[in-house]
Amino acid sequence: MPRKNQGTRPHVVILGAGFGGIKAAKLLADKDVDVTIVDKHNYHLFQPLLYQVSTSILSEDEISYPIRAFFQKNENIDFFMAEATGFDPANKIVKTSHGDISYDYLIIATGATTNYFGMKSVEEHSYPMKTLRESTLLRNHLIRTFERASRVENDKDLKKALMTIMIVGGGPTGVEEAGAISELVYKCMKKDYHNLNMNDVDIKLIEATDKLLPMMPEALRNNTVDVLRGKKVDVRLNTQVRDYDGEYITLKCGEKEEKIRTRTVIWAAGVKAQPVVATLGAEVDRAGRVIVEKTTQVKGFPDIYAIGDSAHFEQDGRPLPTIAPAAYEAAETTVKNIMHAIKGEEQETFVYKDLGSMATIGAGDAVMFKGVMKSKGLFAWIAWMAVHVLRLAGPLTNCTVIFKWVMNYFFGVRMARIVRD
Amino acid sequence: MPRKNQGTRPHVVILGAGFGGIKAAKLLADKDVDVTIVDKHNYHLFQPLLYQVSTSILSEDEISYPIRAFFQKNENIDFFMAEATGFDPANKIVKTSHGDISYDYLIIATGATTNYFGMKSVEEHSYPMKTLRESTLLRNHLIRTFERASRVENDKDLKKALMTIMIVGGGPTGVEEAGAISELVYKCMKKDYHNLNMNDVDIKLIEATDKLLPMMPEALRNNTVDVLRGKKVDVRLNTQVRDYDGEYITLKCGEKEEKIRTRTVIWAAGVKAQPVVATLGAEVDRAGRVIVEKTTQVKGFPDIYAIGDSAHFEQDGRPLPTIAPAAYEAAETTVKNIMHAIKGEEQETFVYKDLGSMATIGAGDAVMFKGVMKSKGLFAWIAWMAVHVLRLAGPLTNCTVIFKWVMNYFFGVRMARIVRD
Repeated sequence: MPRKNQGTRPHVVILGAGFGGIKAAKLLADKDVDVTIVDKHNYHLFQPLLYQVSTSILSEDEISYPIRAFFQKNENIDFFMAEATGFDPANKIVKTSHGDISYDYLIIATGATTNYFGMKSVEEHSYPMKTLRESTLLRNHLIRTFERASRVENDKDLKKALMTIMIVGGGPTGVEEAGAISELVYKCMKKDYHNLNMNDVDIKLIEATDKLLPMMPEALRNNTVDVLRGKKVDVRLNTQVRDYDGEYITLKCGEKEEKIRTRTVIWAAGVKAQPVVATLGAEVDRAGRVIVEKTTQVKGFPDIYAIGDSAHFEQDGRPLPTIAPAAYEAAETTVKNIMHAIKGEEQETFVYKDLGSMATIGAGDAVMFKGVMKSKGLFAWIAWMAVHVLRLAGPLTNCTVIFKWVMNYFFGVRMARIVRD
Repeated sequence: MPRKNQGTRPHVVILGAGFGGIKAAKLLADKDVDVTIVDKHNYHLFQPLLYQVSTSILSEDEISYPIRAFFQKNENIDFFMAEATGFDPANKIVKTSHGDISYDYLIIATGATTNYFGMKSVEEHSYPMKTLRESTLLRNHLIRTFERASRVENDKDLKKALMTIMIVGGGPTGVEEAGAISELVYKCMKKDYHNLNMNDVDIKLIEATDKLLPMMPEALRNNTVDVLRGKKVDVRLNTQVRDYDGEYITLKCGEKEEKIRTRTVIWAAGVKAQPVVATLGAEVDRAGRVIVEKTTQVKGFPDIYAIGDSAHFEQDGRPLPTIAPAAYEAAETTVKNIMHAIKGEEQETFVYKDLGSMATIGAGDAVMFKGVMKSKGLFAWIAWMAVHVLRLAGPLTNCTVIFKWVMNYFFGVRMARIVRD
């Protein structure tokens, strides 16, 4: 027997407690429906700050917020800790690792996972950073390689390989990670390791196209490259990763191939939808995202909606960007449309409003762009801090996060340099 | 070739970066010696607050401090991340998971691990809490069992077993854990789980003797029992654990045996020295601690010292208590004696000065005892906070810890209710 809601009210099931899923649940909290949020984790993850966990700036629990904590006062919102594994749309059932759940309306908001574009060797040996676990494994790895380097006595090549760090992908994640690693190494680890020569460190940011932060105007893109180079990050544009066997990475720039020995390749070069989305049987795009109508309904499945990184929603001939605001905004229209459907009203059309984009390049430095407005440097960084702190769940976490950012900015302090097991 | 120090100065190797090891290294930092600290973790763990990580009050990195961060300004202190695996005292070599290290003087400060007193079934199924990993596994487990209970629809017995929590051991760790779990459940989880009846929760504290906190005077012991019972903790004295198969725990009280179904048994009933200590070949006591002279030298090994939970040091006919101050104080004498040995001077005798003992029973409540001075309630709790915050490494961590304690006290906030994978 599939699990049902207890009452007679319509049952909305939300798959995924990311930005889109939590937003939808919050909007449904005062409506006359029962809601079940399904997620394999018991927390909402603030993914934009994963890079700060991987570089020892923030604690894990500062960017992960218990899902139930959002809804302590909302009796109609239930949480079901399980992984969505499939669909039975004919019977209005979603399958999970802990049994079936029946729904009246379903919101697919399962988010994205890392896309290696079919490169198995890279998938096997590189460090992704889409989940909390991945970011702490990367933190462990960064510290462990320096500990290993400090134990190496005679093998200079190995020592160099241990201190060579490659970040692949010139989007916001790659840029932010590269800046944060540079500061971790040159401001903090430099003082930690008396017997290592930090001139042996080599941090490279690899980007296949000719641009970092492609959504930004040219002046800000160039500024980003300059700032990163000032932080001793070797920015390599027009350079593709061909292979990585755990010891050597193969890069291709034009006709030239290059092999570099490194123990650390961080993969921030692409995302795709969670594989479960494709099992619905609806049409998906190349990144596995389900094609949705202008109403956010999945094409051919009017009682199933998809938002955020699970959905391919076209506007102006392009899919929406894979960022939190796109998920938030789609959640708003989706909730309205579910309430319309319950009342037998007509569905609304979703129109995405671009809120601009921003990226930090390091403590005290960021770029920001919206429409014709652009900004960089300390002002943009303060704006970036404000936006992210306001979006973070929970006023208490905000305090400790601001405190740690200020400490990191003024003193280069990174409190979380912990190899956890 | 064993690893050596580079210079010609005497080389002091310290095994373990706990309270004793870090204290010894700090005292040696301005001396004319080279020091290598060996630890398998890259952090110093503040063990007295592990119970707060397991109950979602503090973050992991608030009680773990990078070892290298202590010694950024001390060129003569080196850290070697490895596990000590054995000794070759004839050649003055200590063996580690990453190769041999030669020493002139050795300090064994490897601390304690959990003692199950030979009960294999308990070891296999219960949750210890001596390491950071163990305390986060316990945190995960406590949350997961409540998530499971909330998914159970018909099986009342299973639901009850999932909500039954046994803490074994009436020392400070058991008392503090029991109080903190009670508050986690009744102040915080109660609001989280709309579909669970918290009257089904059963928290028991099991103690084999007739006393909680045996080091305290009778009035404070009785007060502790009263406070815990007020927090709905079922305190069972004179009760022994005989077996736990992961589903049923067998308790024995007098002649009466009782089986209780529970998914959570937390083992805080005993400690013993790390097993590597016994491989030295010196005389050890029943808890595996090496017998040391009045000078903290290991009997029969004059260039090897042992302190803290690695050492059996007798004073007034009893071994020292297994608490941080005992390790601190022994470290002081040990460092003096190593410097005496280098200079060819006579060894000093270690005299332990009892600084008293204290334990929290919950937010806002503690007991405290020294000599004839005793205190309880809010005042003792504030004193407990002050002592622990002052002992915590790092002024920055202190701020976030105080902040979280205050938030927990006033609002029952537990920010770290995260099941990490």
